[in-house]
Amino acid sequence: MDLHVSVGGRGDRTARIYLTLRAAVLDGRLVAGDRVPSTRDLAVQLGVARGTVSVAYDRLVAEGFLESRPGAGTFVTTVPLTAPDGRERRARPGAVQPLDLWDRPPAPPQGRGRVLHDLGIGLPDPALFPLAQWRREVARQLRRSRLAEATYAGRGVWRLQAEIARLLGLTRSVAAAGEDVIVTAGAQQAVDLVARVLLEPGATVAVEDPGYAAVGRLLETHRADVRGIPVDAEGLVVDALPPDARLVYVTPSHQFPTGIPMSLRRRVALLSWAVEHDAVVVEDDYDSEFRFSDQPVEPLQSLDREGRVVYVGTFSKSLLPALRTGFLVAPRSLQPGLREAKRVTTWEGDATTQGALAEFLAEGHHAAHVRRAGRVYAERRGLMLAGLGELDDVLRVVPSVAGLHVCALFRDPQTDDRAVVARAAARGVRVEALSTHFREQPPRAGLVLGFGGVDAQAIPDALRRLVEVVRPGVRQETSTGSAGV
Amino acid sequence: MDLHVSVGGRGDRTARIYLTLRAAVLDGRLVAGDRVPSTRDLAVQLGVARGTVSVAYDRLVAEGFLESRPGAGTFVTTVPLTAPDGRERRARPGAVQPLDLWDRPPAPPQGRGRVLHDLGIGLPDPALFPLAQWRREVARQLRRSRLAEATYAGRGVWRLQAEIARLLGLTRSVAAAGEDVIVTAGAQQAVDLVARVLLEPGATVAVEDPGYAAVGRLLETHRADVRGIPVDAEGLVVDALPPDARLVYVTPSHQFPTGIPMSLRRRVALLSWAVEHDAVVVEDDYDSEFRFSDQPVEPLQSLDREGRVVYVGTFSKSLLPALRTGFLVAPRSLQPGLREAKRVTTWEGDATTQGALAEFLAEGHHAAHVRRAGRVYAERRGLMLAGLGELDDVLRVVPSVAGLHVCALFRDPQTDDRAVVARAAARGVRVEALSTHFREQPPRAGLVLGFGGVDAQAIPDALRRLVEVVRPGVRQETSTGSAGV
Repeated sequence: MDLHVSVGGRGDRTARIYLTLRAAVLDGRLVAGDRVPSTRDLAVQLGVARGTVSVAYDRLVAEGFLESRPGAGTFVTTVPLTAPDGRERRARPGAVQPLDLWDRPPAPPQGRGRVLHDLGIGLPDPALFPLAQWRREVARQLRRSRLAEATYAGRGVWRLQAEIARLLGLTRSVAAAGEDVIVTAGAQQAVDLVARVLLEPGATVAVEDPGYAAVGRLLETHRADVRGIPVDAEGLVVDALPPDARLVYVTPSHQFPTGIPMSLRRRVALLSWAVEHDAVVVEDDYDSEFRFSDQPVEPLQSLDREGRVVYVGTFSKSLLPALRTGFLVAPRSLQPGLREAKRVTTWEGDATTQGALAEFLAEGHHAAHVRRAGRVYAERRGLMLAGLGELDDVLRVVPSVAGLHVCALFRDPQTDDRAVVARAAARGVRVEALSTHFREQPPRAGLVLGFGGVDAQAIPDALRRLVEVVRPGVRQETSTGSAGV
Repeated sequence: MDLHVSVGGRGDRTARIYLTLRAAVLDGRLVAGDRVPSTRDLAVQLGVARGTVSVAYDRLVAEGFLESRPGAGTFVTTVPLTAPDGRERRARPGAVQPLDLWDRPPAPPQGRGRVLHDLGIGLPDPALFPLAQWRREVARQLRRSRLAEATYAGRGVWRLQAEIARLLGLTRSVAAAGEDVIVTAGAQQAVDLVARVLLEPGATVAVEDPGYAAVGRLLETHRADVRGIPVDAEGLVVDALPPDARLVYVTPSHQFPTGIPMSLRRRVALLSWAVEHDAVVVEDDYDSEFRFSDQPVEPLQSLDREGRVVYVGTFSKSLLPALRTGFLVAPRSLQPGLREAKRVTTWEGDATTQGALAEFLAEGHHAAHVRRAGRVYAERRGLMLAGLGELDDVLRVVPSVAGLHVCALFRDPQTDDRAVVARAAARGVRVEALSTHFREQPPRAGLVLGFGGVDAQAIPDALRRLVEVVRPGVRQETSTGSAGV
């Protein structure tokens, strides 16, 4: 054996002997079955106390790199070790591939650079968040007794369930007691739990088309056969539902992304359809806290007598996405399964945030915030609609009554809305093309414009820039068209 | 039509007309096609201004309860409405059943009442949690700029990934850069993501037996064929693995619940087995922060050259379960799939906790806490082992080097450990029976004793009570046995 152990200089000699031998085994200089010098010999060779070597050997034996054979000496363990590369601090490349299901190119990063006006959708304004109250509530949660009781399902989550039930009852006529509420890490997890509990692989599920792509993708990863169902001026076209759909995912208050509220007739038809076809309706009420009309948007859940509707909501829009807190209210027959699905996957959520949110709701801060922020959003929405009014010859605004974005359809269906969006981006305005939200239905050209993340005083300038890019776009794209300019 | 609308008294008359008509439709007193009085007639009848009635009608029309037929009048919409019961504030019972998969009786509630000494497992001591530093870190996160940037994946989670990589590299020789780390809502979600990305329905997976039941259950809900593999003095018996296992879940640092550290030989054999059988090993390093021996416990991940190991960890034991923060380090080939699985289910986790944890790690508070708490736990563990020493004729302590609990086997295998545990509970001591942690292997009798949640000065009394219940237990249960007393 040719082993160089240098113990000159300062530092822990035992550690250096240990590390040198260990490295020699790991990189193959010492191989299984090699006899290492006796502690006495190595100590003499290195000019150190025998104990220094012994301690290193003991550790290597304990760790399994060396083994002592009584009467024969100390040997490298007879296991085929290969060396981890100490310098390579990356995880291994890996030989295992994920299921084909997951083998998709990652979504292209959303260019958010150099955005002057962000009309992205789904963004509430963090500047409106009542930070002072929130800090106080969080600080109150950070007491030892609270953290200790939150070791398992804390009192926080029970209080939060009760407060959510109260909120939903008051503002949305949702029929639920606290025990009917399951708190989740956002609306997406709520849908995930429902899919786990209801969907066999290959099950047919129906989603709105255009619709919320992340939920479609989620359902696909549950091996569902996901069908995109058209949306008309009354919302989801119930007659177009495949008869074997087990689950129907809808956004009736403010259809995503068109903003259309589902008509009462359509709601009732959907509920009847669900009963007839033994299906479950997932109602995602993602941003209806902010309503801009006296017209109440009655949730499906409160119309449902049969227990077919799972109502899903979130605080991502009414407060902040950073809170990562959503919830669901399911018929009681599904609750034990949903609770177990949550238990086996993520247990409870963040105890501090949940506890703080419960108090925040109980003390009325949430209601006050929704009122205040609603006024701000109403102003922004008004400015946005006024600005879009100037484009009325080109864009038709889709009527909506709630939410933090509006949708407008190009009157000329041949318009390349992605090109318009790209030109808007070049002028510093981030806005989304409606056509990108289609799944299998023929895409329609339009713009989806959020007003959650843009100040009122910036909206005129944003719209002015939009006008500049929309008009040439229409001209370029529709030189042979009949509509438009 | 016989409709009583009372608008006497005070209050918003429009609202009362609206609510009365709406209720009449919903509870069936007015049915589809019924003609309602004209606004003029009803105004006269009620003695109110016509506008008062008109506004109520407009709202009912907008909401879809009524429809106006030009020239004919106003009618109840021709949709078969059934009434939600306004008084019933519970969710509907529901007609939909979950998949059989989820149709299991809920776990019996764990009796935690009147516990004098809680020797439950998996509990760190919240009294040791460095609350002052944590409060400071959380307060620092609660700034508007942080909450805004945390709208999507925040800087907090990137910093946290980098800090976890540094921590794992330093303390566990895990090979990972920040970009290799995926932060999860606890170790359970980490396993869930791996299962989503790797397991076809019906896939064979192997778990330790005895083992961690929650993970076994999770894997079952992924429709896996879950096999319990025996554990011997060196850890998981690799030779007993089914050849078609796609995933092997192990706790090599501190086998749950026996505490056995997997020998190096067995680790290497497991890695070779995984390569040979194209399997993935999930290494759950759930509580190895607290080590009570010079003997290093080399993670499988750092021995793995082939990229077969997914390393899973959590802050639930080193800090607090209430933080609900875990992580995984996977071979790079699995990372895009795992990130997408996380994205489609829960997006990011709690931004405040993640940001606070990143700073907490970066500023060395975590390392300092583990050192301090480690000393406290070492003392408790010593007292526990000393106490168990007095029962050496009855119980054999399983050697372990890390973690927050120890396991002891009854020398008499016929001992009814559940009966012992029940007697201990009657004496105010909560402790777990080893036999309850078995899946399909023949259960062995023993006790699993946590020292995370019990003060050092209480341990002698807890053990004294345990001695009292163990000895009669052994006597009672083994009157014909050969071992034991």
